[in-house]
Amino acid sequence: MPLPEDPIAVFDSGFGGLTVLKALAELLPNENFLYFADTARLPYGNKGGSTIARYCQENALFLQKQQIKLLVMACNTACAFALNLVREMLSIPVIGITEQGIGDVLRLLPNHRVGILGTRSTISSGLYERALTEKSPSIQLFPLACPLFVPLVEEQYTEHKIAELVAQEYLSTLDQYQIDGLLLACTHYPLLKPVLRKVLGPDLLLIDPSFSCAKETKTLLQKHNLLNPSPSLGSYQFIVSDDTEQFRRLGQAFFNHPMDNISLSSEYCAEFL
Amino acid sequence: MPLPEDPIAVFDSGFGGLTVLKALAELLPNENFLYFADTARLPYGNKGGSTIARYCQENALFLQKQQIKLLVMACNTACAFALNLVREMLSIPVIGITEQGIGDVLRLLPNHRVGILGTRSTISSGLYERALTEKSPSIQLFPLACPLFVPLVEEQYTEHKIAELVAQEYLSTLDQYQIDGLLLACTHYPLLKPVLRKVLGPDLLLIDPSFSCAKETKTLLQKHNLLNPSPSLGSYQFIVSDDTEQFRRLGQAFFNHPMDNISLSSEYCAEFL
Repeated sequence: MPLPEDPIAVFDSGFGGLTVLKALAELLPNENFLYFADTARLPYGNKGGSTIARYCQENALFLQKQQIKLLVMACNTACAFALNLVREMLSIPVIGITEQGIGDVLRLLPNHRVGILGTRSTISSGLYERALTEKSPSIQLFPLACPLFVPLVEEQYTEHKIAELVAQEYLSTLDQYQIDGLLLACTHYPLLKPVLRKVLGPDLLLIDPSFSCAKETKTLLQKHNLLNPSPSLGSYQFIVSDDTEQFRRLGQAFFNHPMDNISLSSEYCAEFL
Repeated sequence: MPLPEDPIAVFDSGFGGLTVLKALAELLPNENFLYFADTARLPYGNKGGSTIARYCQENALFLQKQQIKLLVMACNTACAFALNLVREMLSIPVIGITEQGIGDVLRLLPNHRVGILGTRSTISSGLYERALTEKSPSIQLFPLACPLFVPLVEEQYTEHKIAELVAQEYLSTLDQYQIDGLLLACTHYPLLKPVLRKVLGPDLLLIDPSFSCAKETKTLLQKHNLLNPSPSLGSYQFIVSDDTEQFRRLGQAFFNHPMDNISLSSEYCAEFL
């Protein structure tokens, strides 16, 4: 049985989920967090669906053995191919960032014209189109894969003229559709918000589902009586499947917070890599 | 015992090694080739050394079971961390692209000022600096990691103004050093030659070690009496660890040749992924 003191686990293939961890930590400062990243096999965003599903199955087996009270799947691509699979495998509540993104779009822009930016695999999965047109039949969707956004963010070129040029190049295809808003369906993309604003203008609604992820986490913890009663600030633990120093170097740029407790899971590596 | 009809194996983490396969196929048109790519775990170029070494050990175990006569390790990052390891594991001749690059620099530019472009992991391994300064103590080396080059090539932006801007950005740090030549120490980078020429001028020597790889392969096959005597054109087989269609789509852009025989190795996946 999960306990209120147990950590909330956040899973991502790599660094992007740290933007979700940030939103969670702001709303739930007293919670303990365990962030797990499969850095040895990142990125997931260009890989095939069955490979991603296999990796997520392994991730769930690993997380099952940690004493966690809730899991946030903070990787759109992982959710696109394995959210249900992971939910079936674990006995704790599982929140998928994709469901939060879908909820945000339905709440804010039902029956509107909405762009969806994601990795190649997320976009080609068709997940967002299926879910959104089912619930809002007159919605008009413009999905767009932006494969260079992740490496640009990981190179810390978020405010660089090259990021602006890449964004112009990708988003020029959306110009003709006069969209009412844009869902950032990859957890790296919120870091490109200043560039996206520059290219798309200051008024377009940019939807970052990490805030809804945090709210839903709080709601579910309350519902299950699992909010941490401790009045002190929570702790952060990071577990990765590749080099810890590389994770620290880039992670701190994403997370804006010291990342002291990073470990390589030799158990995960021995079993799955 | 390997036979002359057996294929030459070419290993890369993904697509870059196809530039080496092209050079091999041009020099040795009657040979059969088996190209193996660990596409489920690519890229290697940002991963830690021990992770890369572990993957290469697994790759060697897999290749050991194929009936091959020679292995070309066509991935600089894999060679930087595991060439000796793989050589010890296999009983056939193993050619490493890094050794060919080192040989090319020593032959063409001993005691000169040489830039070395590679992935972050290749550059931080220090392999080229160690090997080259040992053999040519007065050589001056300017190693430079270019992490965005691989995603740019894989996005097929090789002739795009964005590739030119990224090249300008990276290579501007070399301007002050007045280098005499540049080693392309990543098998993706030869596809950026037109852009590199534009940025660096038409006269700078660009060293692409894939041609030496092909020559060395021919020499070794002759030495071991393993040249294929068949007068007909050789065959190509591709084995990958992730989705075959994704590999075909991008692979053909690299290889300029129909890629019919691509299979996912379920044996490799079951054992190692």
